[in-house]
Amino acid sequence: MSHYDIFIGEMVGTALLLLLGGGVVAGVVLKRSKSHDAGWLAISFGWGLAVLTGAYLATGVSGAHLNPAVTLGLAIAGTTPWGDVPLYMASQLLGALVGAFLVWVAYMGQFKAHLTDPDIIAAQPRIEGLVDQKTAPKAGPVLGIFSTGPEIRNTVQNLLTEIVATFVLVIAILTQGLNNEGNGLGTLGALIVALVVVGIGLSLGGPTGYAINPARDLGPRIVHFLLPLPNKGGSDWTYAWIPVVGPLVGAAAAAGFFNVALK
Amino acid sequence: MSHYDIFIGEMVGTALLLLLGGGVVAGVVLKRSKSHDAGWLAISFGWGLAVLTGAYLATGVSGAHLNPAVTLGLAIAGTTPWGDVPLYMASQLLGALVGAFLVWVAYMGQFKAHLTDPDIIAAQPRIEGLVDQKTAPKAGPVLGIFSTGPEIRNTVQNLLTEIVATFVLVIAILTQGLNNEGNGLGTLGALIVALVVVGIGLSLGGPTGYAINPARDLGPRIVHFLLPLPNKGGSDWTYAWIPVVGPLVGAAAAAGFFNVALK
Amino acid sequence: MSHYDIFIGEMVGTALLLLLGGGVVAGVVLKRSKSHDAGWLAISFGWGLAVLTGAYLATGVSGAHLNPAVTLGLAIAGTTPWGDVPLYMASQLLGALVGAFLVWVAYMGQFKAHLTDPDIIAAQPRIEGLVDQKTAPKAGPVLGIFSTGPEIRNTVQNLLTEIVATFVLVIAILTQGLNNEGNGLGTLGALIVALVVVGIGLSLGGPTGYAINPARDLGPRIVHFLLPLPNKGGSDWTYAWIPVVGPLVGAAAAAGFFNVALK
Amino acid sequence: MSHYDIFIGEMVGTALLLLLGGGVVAGVVLKRSKSHDAGWLAISFGWGLAVLTGAYLATGVSGAHLNPAVTLGLAIAGTTPWGDVPLYMASQLLGALVGAFLVWVAYMGQFKAHLTDPDIIAAQPRIEGLVDQKTAPKAGPVLGIFSTGPEIRNTVQNLLTEIVATFVLVIAILTQGLNNEGNGLGTLGALIVALVVVGIGLSLGGPTGYAINPARDLGPRIVHFLLPLPNKGGSDWTYAWIPVVGPLVGAAAAAGFFNVALK
Repeated sequence: MSHYDIFIGEMVGTALLLLLGGGVVAGVVLKRSKSHDAGWLAISFGWGLAVLTGAYLATGVSGAHLNPAVTLGLAIAGTTPWGDVPLYMASQLLGALVGAFLVWVAYMGQFKAHLTDPDIIAAQPRIEGLVDQKTAPKAGPVLGIFSTGPEIRNTVQNLLTEIVATFVLVIAILTQGLNNEGNGLGTLGALIVALVVVGIGLSLGGPTGYAINPARDLGPRIVHFLLPLPNKGGSDWTYAWIPVVGPLVGAAAAAGFFNVALK
Repeated sequence: MSHYDIFIGEMVGTALLLLLGGGVVAGVVLKRSKSHDAGWLAISFGWGLAVLTGAYLATGVSGAHLNPAVTLGLAIAGTTPWGDVPLYMASQLLGALVGAFLVWVAYMGQFKAHLTDPDIIAAQPRIEGLVDQKTAPKAGPVLGIFSTGPEIRNTVQNLLTEIVATFVLVIAILTQGLNNEGNGLGTLGALIVALVVVGIGLSLGGPTGYAINPARDLGPRIVHFLLPLPNKGGSDWTYAWIPVVGPLVGAAAAAGFFNVALK
Repeated sequence: MSHYDIFIGEMVGTALLLLLGGGVVAGVVLKRSKSHDAGWLAISFGWGLAVLTGAYLATGVSGAHLNPAVTLGLAIAGTTPWGDVPLYMASQLLGALVGAFLVWVAYMGQFKAHLTDPDIIAAQPRIEGLVDQKTAPKAGPVLGIFSTGPEIRNTVQNLLTEIVATFVLVIAILTQGLNNEGNGLGTLGALIVALVVVGIGLSLGGPTGYAINPARDLGPRIVHFLLPLPNKGGSDWTYAWIPVVGPLVGAAAAAGFFNVALK
Repeated sequence: MSHYDIFIGEMVGTALLLLLGGGVVAGVVLKRSKSHDAGWLAISFGWGLAVLTGAYLATGVSGAHLNPAVTLGLAIAGTTPWGDVPLYMASQLLGALVGAFLVWVAYMGQFKAHLTDPDIIAAQPRIEGLVDQKTAPKAGPVLGIFSTGPEIRNTVQNLLTEIVATFVLVIAILTQGLNNEGNGLGTLGALIVALVVVGIGLSLGGPTGYAINPARDLGPRIVHFLLPLPNKGGSDWTYAWIPVVGPLVGAAAAAGFFNVALK
């Protein structure tokens, strides 16, 4: 796999992941969207099918990591050379920036209508449905379209939830390597991993919104910080390290466990 | 592939696409349907499984484009001969007309009950849930069963949303060609593309109702225009060019990007 | 394929189809069920996964018709010998009786609680949510768990809806034969057909409840007629011929069209 | 397959099954979860995708039984040696304990918020939505996250529902053996069985919550009994034998029927 293949596969694949993943939340959260209030099952399927779309594109190009935690796990498991890790991670972060920006492009009118609605601003001065109101003074009403946030702000639990959820994702991907010797997931593997992500969303997304991917959370948070949206509120930087560290720890734990117990 | 194969595969496949795609919206929108108010997740799955049904039939016959934007993308990418493009597109449009007409056949009693209900006519004099009420004087209460319309009428955003959403569809289909040398998608490819369309609906359908296919929008709009339904209102022809031009531009962009970056 | 294989595959497969298909409606309709009011998307997935379960069992045994309309279509298309048709159909009807009876076994307490609730009896003296109240004097509050009924009672439309919906099912199954030479659907084919049935339910189930299978409707109607349930009301025999004739006509039309246009 | 493979595959696979299966119920039941009130369709998909995740990991390691009833069925059918049965079952029970404990880890803040909410304690002194209030004095408000319980408490019906539902699961798994000679389900088989479990949940989960797996019910019940949660109420031990005995009887019946009629 050439450096170019890694770059283009991970960048485009992660952009598709964030475009469709951020898009489903935008559609459900924002006013004057046909999918407004479509519910958690719609969000979980939306993110899972975002993984499918990105992974289907990238599997034959870069192996479809689309996630620095997955790259770390595959490096620890010996599948991905350590020398390629920085390029994977940088490409993923760049793709996440692109994808989150495209969510704004597709929903720009809805963003404006939502953020200039006096009732929404009055009712939810901090964050919409994503963070405990009492302890989240810095977050804004559309941040949840970009980045994750906890329902109950508790560093230990928030880290543990992300660790456990990412462990599930990465152990499933590593197991796939047991069944398949090819480059990347393959079409059926991409489908299975996408459905596993639907399952993680349904089952472990409740407490923190399941980042399970540092690029998925950090990239869009930067876009939220940079975009000149009216009344957008803060980008909740005090929480930002948890969806980076938690997934990396979870992935390392999964890969270590895989190496010791399952390889 | 013979001209007859192209004609019959695209015509029948696109008719199935529109029959099931229009049908799910009819069932959700119209009064006295068992699926009334089934929600956006049901609509997204309905359209995705409509793609599956049409593509499953057409994959071994005509390659299952079912969409002039896909045909354009495949021609730019060099997969489909340019000489076949007019036949593909004409067959798709004809199929879309047939499918939209069959939606009316299957739901004729519900159409009549809905369009003669005084409360519905009084409450929604223009369009039902699909277009901004203030700026859509020409649209009718069942147009959304046939064609798409924007929640917020803004030419630039509406075009951009359709371009972005179609880019996702066409890049996924072109990528499929990386993994598979056969004629058309194959069974597993049809399943993946159908699920990608579910994802596009969930994630990018909120602003405009995701036409992502000129035949899917134009054909049924013509059927709405021709059908002698009572109180049907206008067919919103001022918007009609956007779901034709947007998807074609998005597909061309995807194919160009594919040729340059991924091929 | 031996006569025994046809009998056991079709009987057990159709019993599974009706057990899971009737079961999802029982769970959604009946009081004191955890899945009460789970919605039309749940019903559509329930019936589709019922097809998957029955077809997955029967594909390697009898070819997994599970439906007299499918058997008729495959006979017209030349896949199934005409001499086997009566055995297929009889086995399917017997399986449908068994499956519908098992729905009552699994939900017996819920049936009793529902049918002895004075509010339910007072509010819905005829049929629950499944048939037009004014014109359905003979139907009962749980008939919809067993058999289908129209939202609007109109012989022409009801027949046409069943014909169109069954045409979609049978043309998809016949197309499958284009791609696959084996006995029955195979695992992937069973999955695709099951998802097509989810799609038919979402898109064409609204007017009549999509019987699309004479055995699926007639067998459970006989069970409803025979079971000594309190306050069960009539079995709506005046409608019973439509979900038998409509699917058979739709299947014959699909097979004829397939023979002429696609074979 | 070595004893170690059986142990690690079944233990880890069943832990994943219970983590994601218990997790979806926790997310839907508990206060201050993003997936609160996501509905029965979400629960059914959550459990089915939990099966997918656990089975995808374990299929190439231990054959992915993840369920003592499945192990019993495969032993009766002659696929699994009787000498391995105790190790399978013990590993599954251990995994279920681990998985149920991890649900608490991921949702610890939500458990605390829910169980210390005076309104919840006042409104639901016994069990939440899962057991008949009049006859369930020993059950607590979060027991349903761990173990199953009947909507209507009736030993005969509760046993029959579990027997019928497990019969469906095990006959589907045994049939899979007809189509596939490999070790375990394989990737596509894991997907099909997961979707069958979604179907069982939708169609037969209404009366008892579909344990269909003794380890899935007993392991988490022990964890509920041991965890020092405030106001957790009783663990409903009087019901505990039904989701053990019912599934074992259903599996034995399925395997016996398979041996006689389908093998």
